[in-house]
Amino acid sequence: MLNPVRLIEAKRDGRTLEPSELRALFEGYLSGSVEEYQMAAFLMAVQFRGMTADELAEFVRLMLHSGAVLDLASVGAVRIDKHSTGGVGDKVSLPLAVLVAEAGVPVPMMSGRGLGHTGGTLDKLESIPGFRTDLSLDEFRAVLGRVGTAMIGQTEEIAPLDRRLYALRSVTGTVPSIPLIAASIMSKKLAEDLTGLVLDVKVGSGAFMEDEDRALELSRTMVRIGGDHGVPTVALLTAMDRTLGGSAGNALEVAEAIACLQGSGPTDLRDVVVALAGEMVVLGGVAADVEEGRRWAAETLASGSALERFRTLIEAQGGDPGVIDDPGRLPTAPVVEDVRALEGGTLRRIEPRRIGEVVVELGGGRFRLGAEIHPGVGVDRIAPPGQAIDTGDRIARVHARSHVEARTAVEAIRAAVEMETGEPVRPLLSHRVTEGGVQTLQR
Amino acid sequence: MLNPVRLIEAKRDGRTLEPSELRALFEGYLSGSVEEYQMAAFLMAVQFRGMTADELAEFVRLMLHSGAVLDLASVGAVRIDKHSTGGVGDKVSLPLAVLVAEAGVPVPMMSGRGLGHTGGTLDKLESIPGFRTDLSLDEFRAVLGRVGTAMIGQTEEIAPLDRRLYALRSVTGTVPSIPLIAASIMSKKLAEDLTGLVLDVKVGSGAFMEDEDRALELSRTMVRIGGDHGVPTVALLTAMDRTLGGSAGNALEVAEAIACLQGSGPTDLRDVVVALAGEMVVLGGVAADVEEGRRWAAETLASGSALERFRTLIEAQGGDPGVIDDPGRLPTAPVVEDVRALEGGTLRRIEPRRIGEVVVELGGGRFRLGAEIHPGVGVDRIAPPGQAIDTGDRIARVHARSHVEARTAVEAIRAAVEMETGEPVRPLLSHRVTEGGVQTLQR
Repeated sequence: MLNPVRLIEAKRDGRTLEPSELRALFEGYLSGSVEEYQMAAFLMAVQFRGMTADELAEFVRLMLHSGAVLDLASVGAVRIDKHSTGGVGDKVSLPLAVLVAEAGVPVPMMSGRGLGHTGGTLDKLESIPGFRTDLSLDEFRAVLGRVGTAMIGQTEEIAPLDRRLYALRSVTGTVPSIPLIAASIMSKKLAEDLTGLVLDVKVGSGAFMEDEDRALELSRTMVRIGGDHGVPTVALLTAMDRTLGGSAGNALEVAEAIACLQGSGPTDLRDVVVALAGEMVVLGGVAADVEEGRRWAAETLASGSALERFRTLIEAQGGDPGVIDDPGRLPTAPVVEDVRALEGGTLRRIEPRRIGEVVVELGGGRFRLGAEIHPGVGVDRIAPPGQAIDTGDRIARVHARSHVEARTAVEAIRAAVEMETGEPVRPLLSHRVTEGGVQTLQR
Repeated sequence: MLNPVRLIEAKRDGRTLEPSELRALFEGYLSGSVEEYQMAAFLMAVQFRGMTADELAEFVRLMLHSGAVLDLASVGAVRIDKHSTGGVGDKVSLPLAVLVAEAGVPVPMMSGRGLGHTGGTLDKLESIPGFRTDLSLDEFRAVLGRVGTAMIGQTEEIAPLDRRLYALRSVTGTVPSIPLIAASIMSKKLAEDLTGLVLDVKVGSGAFMEDEDRALELSRTMVRIGGDHGVPTVALLTAMDRTLGGSAGNALEVAEAIACLQGSGPTDLRDVVVALAGEMVVLGGVAADVEEGRRWAAETLASGSALERFRTLIEAQGGDPGVIDDPGRLPTAPVVEDVRALEGGTLRRIEPRRIGEVVVELGGGRFRLGAEIHPGVGVDRIAPPGQAIDTGDRIARVHARSHVEARTAVEAIRAAVEMETGEPVRPLLSHRVTEGGVQTLQR
C-alpha cells in the first residue's frame, strides 16, 4: 500500500526512491489517489534534491509508457527529429525539416505552441493560410511518406503524465529543474519512434536556461536518456543571448524561413540550420561524418532546392503554397513602424527576452495556454550583434495592430538596446554534446 | 494583483518576501485564489529555504489574526500556559496545570489530541468518565475563574489559517520545518491572551525533533516570537529518548498523573513538572526566581495539596472525581500481560517511539484525525533507564483488548529494548532558553 507522504519525505530528505516507489507515486497520481498538492510538494522537493540517474531513467519510462508510443517503421528504417528548448525568433524547424527530408531522411516532427516569451513552431506554421497542424496520425504518416517530413502538435495520446505534470509545474514554480525538464522533453520525443534525435539547447537571456553549466548538464542528461533508450542523441548548445535571425513573430518568421530556404536570409539562422542538419543526416545514415553532413546541408540550402519541398509540405498540410513565391500572402499587421537608434556606436545586442515579450504584448504570443494570437504582428529587421550604427539608423521594425501598441513596442525595444562595452555575445554554436562527451566548438 | 507563482519562485530561489507579499499569498490561500497545490509547493520551498526573522514575524501575525484572539483579562492580571512539542508518556499537563493554579497563577490551557505516536492531553482527560473538553468559551472562563485552571481543546475560531496549513503539511511532507512548527505553535498560544508561556521542547527519538541543535533552534525561534508579541517565553529542553514516566496510554497516564499529585510516581515525571512549574510561577509573579519557584513546586507536590484542585477541576468539567481516590474507576483493558526481559544486564532504555506506536496499535491512539480510541489500553510499569535487570524480570506491562494484540505488543516492546553499551541517555533537563540566551542545565 502506497503512502505518498513517505515518498515525499524520502525525496525531501535526499533518499533515493526505488523504481517501484516512483511507479506507485506516479500511477497513484494518474489514478487520483495521490493529490495534486502532494505531487506539487514532491516536484518542489525534486527541484531542490534532483534525481539520481536511476530515478530519472524510471521517471522517463513512466512518462513514456503513460501513453501511446507511435509505430513509424512503415515510414522508413530511420526517423530523425530535432527538439529546441525554445527561444526568441527560433524558426529553425521550418527550413530544417524540409532540408533534412531533401537528403532522404524522414523527419516526423511533433512541435509545441508558444508560451511566455518564446514562440512555438505550430503557431508559426498556422500563420500560413490554411495550414493544418492537427493532422490525424494516419494523415501524419501519409504526409511523412509522401513529403519526407510532416509537422504536427503532440497528440493527446502521447505522455499524458507529462501533460499533467507540465501543467502543474507551470503553476507551482517547479519548471526550472533539470531532471524534470529532461524527462518532459525526452519522454515525448521517445514516443515518436525515432532512430535518432538532435537537440538544440538554447543558452542566454532569451532562453529558459541562461547559465551555460546548467545547459550543459541538461544536454548531458538528455543525451544519456536518449542513449539508454536506444535513440542516439546529439545536443548542440546555441546562442540565445540575442534573437536568432532578424525576426520574431509568426508570419514574419515564416517569411524568414522561406528566405533561408532560398539560400539567403540571416547568416546566424543559416549556420544553426546547417549545423543541426549536419548532425541529422549523419544520424540518418546518409553522411559519413558531421563535416560532410554540414557541407551537404550548406550546399543544398544555397541551391534553393529544399524550398520546393517546403511548398509540397505546405500543400500537403492544407496550406496556401503561394506564400513561397509571394510572402505578401502571409498575414500582415496594419501598422509598421521603425525603431531608430538613439545613439551611435557598435551594437552589442538587443536583449532577446524583451523582444519576445514585445511580440506577446503585440498579440503574437500568449501568456496562458489557449489564448488567441495575431499572426501578422511582431518585430523584424532586428540589427545583429556587432553592427555599426549611427544615431537615427533603423535597428528594428515593429508590426502592430495599432499606433498605440506600435509606440509602446518601439519604446520597449529601445530600452532593450545594449551598446558594445567589451563584453562579447556568446558564440553562436558553443558546444556539442554526445554520449562520448562534451566538445567545445567555439570560444 | 497577486501572482502566486512569482512568490513561490522567490522563496524557491532564496529571495526574501515582503510582508505585503506574504499577506497576499496567505490571504489568497484563505480566499481560495491560491490553490492547495501552490501552497504545498510554497511550504516545501520553505522547508528547504527557511524564513528570515522578518518573514516569520509577519507569518505569525497572519496566522494569529486569521482568527479570534481571546480576552481573558477578567480572569486575572496574569495568565500562564505551557506547551509541549509532544512525546510518549507526556502526561505533564495534568499535574502541572493544577499545581501552578495552586500558587494562585491562572492557567488557561488549550491542548491538542494525539496524532501518530505521541499522545494528546485531551484524549487523556477524556479517559476520565464524563470529563468534557469541549467547554464553550464562557464555561472555560467560568471554570478558570473558579478552579484557577481549565483544560479544553483549541476552538474553531483560533488561527484557522494554521488549521488549514497544519492539515496540508501533514499530507505533503512539510511538517519538520522550524519556522512552520514555531509559527503554528506560537500563533495558537498567542491567541490565548497569555502574559507568559513555558515551552517543553522534547528531544529524542520519541519526539518530533531528535536533534538537539534543531530543538535549540526551534526553542530560540519560539522564545523570540513570544517576546516580540509581549509574552515572555521560556523553553526547557527535556529528554524524549525514553518514555517520560512509567506509562503510555490514556487512562494509565491519568493514574500516573494522580500519583504524581499525591507526591509519588516516577521521579522523572516529577522533575519535569517541578521544573516547568518553577518557570511558570516566576512568570506569574509569585516567585522571585526559578530556584524559589522550583522549591515551592517540589514542596507543594510532595504535600499532595494540589490533588484536591485536580478533583475540583474534574468535577467542574463534568468528570467523575471518584477516580482520584479510586483509579480503578478509570477505563481498563481486559488483557494485561507482562513483558519480561530476555537477557540480564543494565537497561539503557526501551526505545520510546516504538512504545508510542504500540499504544496506537493497541487502539490507544490514532494515525488519522477523528479516529476513535480505546482509553484503557497502553503500556505501564515501563522500566527506567539504568535499571539492573535479570533474565525474566518484568520490564513493562501491556494492557490490551485481546490476547493476540497483547502478544504482538509484547514482542514489539521486547524488540525495542536496548541494553547498556556505554552510550548514555540524554539528561532529563538539558537546556533552558530565554530571550537572554541558552543556559545548559545538565550535561
